Amino acid sequence: MNESESGAREAPAPLPSEPSGGGLSRRGLLGLAVGGGVAGLAVGLGAGTAGGVALGRARAAEEAESRYEFFGTHQAGITTPVQDHLHFASFDMMPRTDRDDLLSLLQDWSYAAARMTQGLEVSASGAVNGSADAPPDDTGEALGLPAAGLTLTFGFGPGLFENEDGDRYGLAARRPPGLERLPAFLGDDLDPEASHGDLCIQACADDPQVAVHAIRNLSRIAFGRARLRWSQLGFGKTSRTTASQATPRNLFGFKDGTANILADDTAALADHVWVADADEPSWMAGGSYLVARKIAMLIETWDRVRLAEQDTIIGRDKGVGAPLSGGDEFTPPDFHGTTIDANSHVRLAHPEQNDGIRILRRGYNYVDGNNTLGRLDAGLFFLSYQRDPAQFISLQRRLSIDRLNEYIRHVGSGIWAIPPGARPGSYVGAELFA
Amino acid sequence: MNESESGAREAPAPLPSEPSGGGLSRRGLLGLAVGGGVAGLAVGLGAGTAGGVALGRARAAEEAESRYEFFGTHQAGITTPVQDHLHFASFDMMPRTDRDDLLSLLQDWSYAAARMTQGLEVSASGAVNGSADAPPDDTGEALGLPAAGLTLTFGFGPGLFENEDGDRYGLAARRPPGLERLPAFLGDDLDPEASHGDLCIQACADDPQVAVHAIRNLSRIAFGRARLRWSQLGFGKTSRTTASQATPRNLFGFKDGTANILADDTAALADHVWVADADEPSWMAGGSYLVARKIAMLIETWDRVRLAEQDTIIGRDKGVGAPLSGGDEFTPPDFHGTTIDANSHVRLAHPEQNDGIRILRRGYNYVDGNNTLGRLDAGLFFLSYQRDPAQFISLQRRLSIDRLNEYIRHVGSGIWAIPPGARPGSYVGAELFA
Repeated sequence: MNESESGAREAPAPLPSEPSGGGLSRRGLLGLAVGGGVAGLAVGLGAGTAGGVALGRARAAEEAESRYEFFGTHQAGITTPVQDHLHFASFDMMPRTDRDDLLSLLQDWSYAAARMTQGLEVSASGAVNGSADAPPDDTGEALGLPAAGLTLTFGFGPGLFENEDGDRYGLAARRPPGLERLPAFLGDDLDPEASHGDLCIQACADDPQVAVHAIRNLSRIAFGRARLRWSQLGFGKTSRTTASQATPRNLFGFKDGTANILADDTAALADHVWVADADEPSWMAGGSYLVARKIAMLIETWDRVRLAEQDTIIGRDKGVGAPLSGGDEFTPPDFHGTTIDANSHVRLAHPEQNDGIRILRRGYNYVDGNNTLGRLDAGLFFLSYQRDPAQFISLQRRLSIDRLNEYIRHVGSGIWAIPPGARPGSYVGAELFA
Repeated sequence: MNESESGAREAPAPLPSEPSGGGLSRRGLLGLAVGGGVAGLAVGLGAGTAGGVALGRARAAEEAESRYEFFGTHQAGITTPVQDHLHFASFDMMPRTDRDDLLSLLQDWSYAAARMTQGLEVSASGAVNGSADAPPDDTGEALGLPAAGLTLTFGFGPGLFENEDGDRYGLAARRPPGLERLPAFLGDDLDPEASHGDLCIQACADDPQVAVHAIRNLSRIAFGRARLRWSQLGFGKTSRTTASQATPRNLFGFKDGTANILADDTAALADHVWVADADEPSWMAGGSYLVARKIAMLIETWDRVRLAEQDTIIGRDKGVGAPLSGGDEFTPPDFHGTTIDANSHVRLAHPEQNDGIRILRRGYNYVDGNNTLGRLDAGLFFLSYQRDPAQFISLQRRLSIDRLNEYIRHVGSGIWAIPPGARPGSYVGAELFA
């Protein structure tokens, strides 16, 4: 490409932190240049190289776009105001990989994630500034797009600590006690190919092209070390994490997540979401546990249910989302008496009916085309963060008598330990290897 | 629900036209109340009923949101500035349906489309204002959302005019001569279950929930008359129809659609997109022909191609999108000499190399998860509008030697006649039955 043209573009904003680079491996990115020369591949994260990133995706006119720091006490993408789009990806480590492979992968992922969340390409040479004789580092479809609020949240599945191949990465002793595949729940109809996984990445952004670009490039960086097991696109967030966000509606047409834990409720987050310093294992302090459930909705069946019955099943009024005991959307439900059905969703899921158990929900609607009967293959990709997997298990068991079960099927499932945020200059999960 | 609460909501803006209603059937909407009482179901399109539409989706605060008229000379969704999201749906008429079924379906679809494109629910009783003892008319997940630029574009497939069951609807004599299933092209690998269809609806909106809501409700209205055959979600528009829209990038990372026909180029639209009054058949005057091609991209293979080779294959520079003969994105390519490869995409697709043939492109990127090899199931959902299907056929045949073919597979295909826009008070396709 024409260097003088590219030089005329605005240089991207510097990264919010300037790690030494010592903690971040460059091996994976170099490994991308399979079949091509690597001579021209310049990879660097320091501010000194930022001026060389031509065609950077962050432009002055888009400064107002949301941009979230990658480094921090907690990973971004949990209490971050819920973005409009999701691309969730589950990975399995490749056979015969070792601890160094895993560690370098996490370093390379962190390196790329720290850049992409700031609206930059995966590396300084990116899509068009490397050697013309090498495959580009970045796949390029997000060139010119802003960060679009991208967050990338990484997790460790049970199989990473020990699986049928044994303790591949020497991590068995550091396994969180609660990090086990979820027990079978009544009505589960899980597709193993859309469940589980050694690693996960939750990519959320306000532009689906930005989320897809991130997952695609992280998958590419994983080449030879981890392989995409399954992935899911979602839209139309079904929860909110800030009071200023309107409560969205799920595909049953009801407001969902009215009682969610909000980002500014520090006490509730400490009680229900973040792993505490005193919790075991200590490397998880500041982290959380993520449960994903792909919940197919039988929407054509639901759509034939009369309105009063829909309200009864949910326990809320479809219009404003008020509990059937009265008031408005944010009036606490009154579970005395029978106005709210004993097996309604709102009653069974409510903290008051679950010894105060709460979770932070962050799900998305999905539509995967339609099935051969001409019915939309649609539902809720449920995501929840909690301090202990037992919170989800307890709530889900309570829902075994939920009247809503007649209209849903759980078809996918996964659980991951979400380590704390990466410290500046370090990488996500470093505490696990310390 | 509480009537006084709903009454406090802002009444939606009146529809842009006030048809008598005489041209629009109410049969289908009434037919929705299967298994429930219909006494409370009030359906009406006139302005007199608009005040009764509580919880309307159009709110004062969102007046600035794009809203496009449904009625007009041409259908919306063709030259309309390309929205961010697509839900495309193909339908087959049900066995043993007759001409009245088809006609009433088009009337009911037009009725609902005229409302939804204005940010209203499918009917006045909508999701929450009908009888509590009946299933709601509207599925409700778009309650509270603005119109989000929704356009709904309807088309007639070849099978509607005659298929293996004969001339089911008495339309064989009115079939446009060019409306035939597309011929086989070199490299086609079509999935019949993701191809063809008697009817199509292209739903475009800036909010995917709005597009999905529209397709879902139109599918529901079709119950007993037509059945969803296949559907496709798309994002990250890959074309532009106005000069103010930046040229977007496809999943190969290249700018796409630089040379598209723009909405204000009246002469080019008349020459290449709109069926003229003098064209046959006369009922198509003001209409167009839509070709859809689901083009899977082998992105992992592409991503290993060196940059210079990628540029050569496309014939443009990946960074700024300039033709390799020089200049910037909008400099016309110079096909003299050899700087632009003889079999490059830009050369083979260019009007100058195709006797001036042009089409209006309106495609979207798609990602349908991943395959069992861990590769993203991704590509381009190509949509083009042209005055005559022969334009697409000629261009596609020319592309048989396109170097890009090594990295793509055509897996889905369809063609539909797009009738002119519905006149106020009438319905889409009325000219076909006149």
